Amino acid sequence: MTVPLDLIPVHKAQRPFFVGVDVGGTGVKIGVVDEQGRTLARTSIPTLEERGPQDAVERITRTLQGELATTGLSLDDVAAVGLGTPGTMDIPQGMMLDPPNLPHWQNFPIRDALAKQCGKPVSFANDANAAAYGEYWVGSGRDYRSMVMLTLGTGVGGGIIVDDVSIDGENSHGSECGHIIIDYTPNARLCPCGQTGHLEAYASATALVKRTKEALAAGRQSTLNARVAEGEEPSGLMLAQEAENGDQLALDLILETAKYVGIGAVSLMHTIDPGAVILGGAMNFGGNASKLGRRFIERVREEVRRRAFPIPAKNTVVDFASLVGHAGYIGAAGIARMAYHKKQG
Amino acid sequence: MTVPLDLIPVHKAQRPFFVGVDVGGTGVKIGVVDEQGRTLARTSIPTLEERGPQDAVERITRTLQGELATTGLSLDDVAAVGLGTPGTMDIPQGMMLDPPNLPHWQNFPIRDALAKQCGKPVSFANDANAAAYGEYWVGSGRDYRSMVMLTLGTGVGGGIIVDDVSIDGENSHGSECGHIIIDYTPNARLCPCGQTGHLEAYASATALVKRTKEALAAGRQSTLNARVAEGEEPSGLMLAQEAENGDQLALDLILETAKYVGIGAVSLMHTIDPGAVILGGAMNFGGNASKLGRRFIERVREEVRRRAFPIPAKNTVVDFASLVGHAGYIGAAGIARMAYHKKQG
Repeated sequence: MTVPLDLIPVHKAQRPFFVGVDVGGTGVKIGVVDEQGRTLARTSIPTLEERGPQDAVERITRTLQGELATTGLSLDDVAAVGLGTPGTMDIPQGMMLDPPNLPHWQNFPIRDALAKQCGKPVSFANDANAAAYGEYWVGSGRDYRSMVMLTLGTGVGGGIIVDDVSIDGENSHGSECGHIIIDYTPNARLCPCGQTGHLEAYASATALVKRTKEALAAGRQSTLNARVAEGEEPSGLMLAQEAENGDQLALDLILETAKYVGIGAVSLMHTIDPGAVILGGAMNFGGNASKLGRRFIERVREEVRRRAFPIPAKNTVVDFASLVGHAGYIGAAGIARMAYHKKQG
Repeated sequence: MTVPLDLIPVHKAQRPFFVGVDVGGTGVKIGVVDEQGRTLARTSIPTLEERGPQDAVERITRTLQGELATTGLSLDDVAAVGLGTPGTMDIPQGMMLDPPNLPHWQNFPIRDALAKQCGKPVSFANDANAAAYGEYWVGSGRDYRSMVMLTLGTGVGGGIIVDDVSIDGENSHGSECGHIIIDYTPNARLCPCGQTGHLEAYASATALVKRTKEALAAGRQSTLNARVAEGEEPSGLMLAQEAENGDQLALDLILETAKYVGIGAVSLMHTIDPGAVILGGAMNFGGNASKLGRRFIERVREEVRRRAFPIPAKNTVVDFASLVGHAGYIGAAGIARMAYHKKQG
């Protein structure tokens, strides 16, 4: 049983309480969770990137105080804060370095700025690793000692947790699972990062749209053609709709994405051998609640069974994430909780 | 400074002492090491595979007692024993399952059999992970918090250590770095494991020989042709000799191997982001002591610089291993030492 995502009232929650902050390119999610990962309060505010990080730190703290007040709490009730941001970053130093989607936030000591502003100890994490930790703590990975998460969206993010430890890496570049090489040859696809042959260049929503355009340009029959002729831009959603309406090309393209995800999963399984490979992110084709989502994940599993060593192929669970858009702040809070309890001894 | 590999006398050694046992397909290496990873005594015995594992366990124990006696010690002076064997295995259960090179050793509880025979606690590890731990503890990886080791020989083995923990995996299939996929396409090379596109299918000594035969069959000019015409079988050693004599094809083939190693290293860097990538195994072209070895590793580094993210590309150390054939027993002893000190608290 994964954690319920409905808010719980304070009198049913278990102290200590933790705050998770998940900074994205357009929005910042802020949540208050209890010792068991259940959410007491949550909200989101616009990032307002161009105002810079100090402005955001102040707004985050004010918003947090307001959210706490709605539940009758204050910062005094918070044991610790967890903060996830996009890379590049220096995690031990608490620094954002050169985040591509936050150009005004370069070289900013965000961990200490937030700690100073809110007066609480702040744990700092990569956003994708924080989301993975959330799933590991109370989501789809909660029953396993180790987990690899792939986050399928505009890009392909990654998070790896082994025995309650996030693989952050020596240079805060760990778990960049979208950038493992699945095709080393000169024919390999170009990744948005500038290198070739990376998993992300095949398995992201961006890559799916690109492959769709290539297939249509090659003259493949599809109900997609009519929509594109009317000026619509292909998207994962359009493909899902047409696949659900019976279009073979749309379905093929979606299942080809699943194949690539499976190929990446196998390399990660042969590296980490985790208890579970969990797929998060917006591109889940409806997840387990939809027939298309279930076909998608079954195709991932098929590729894993086909390519992985027999024992991990048989044992490794491959499933969708559970915490949807909440994994980031819940995981950040969970990382703060882990640090808090370690400190308490 | 890596640990010296010369034997040290007992009066210069630091207690407690540990024993490492490294079981291979043809030989078993046994060593006694001190708290600092220095070797007091070592020997090797034939595996005698067909006699089965219980016979080996008894011979290992007798040999160990003899080795200890030569230094004036006995089993009473040993705090713990570490044992590395090839997979497949179940590490938590202490079982060998189905090791391809040891067909008479299937489903054998070797950890407990050795513990019973020698009367000491035995820590059990995969042989490649044990070798990696040895390099991490006192070899080329000793200055880093995390390390990936690739072992280049008949196959490509792997070991990953993060913060003193070996990535053994949920199914004892962790760190099988030779079996990450570097080419997912149908044109990919066949790996001896039966799957396609694995790093091992490109970067092992076996793969080097195969690529050599292909190049000669394609009519490439080379001094290799004369030796093959005289009935010699191509080998890494033959290639090294001809490359050192100025043969371009031999050098190209060797540096192509280095390129593949670099490609694999990048995927592992984008997964683990280790402090160092260390290359062990017999196929080291003379290592840092030889001009060819230095060209080889420089070509690996070049591929890493070309393909990895800028920060890890700049910071990650890529170097040869230091402990040569001794890494396995030293690492097994180191894993026993870690378990011993954890138990002592």
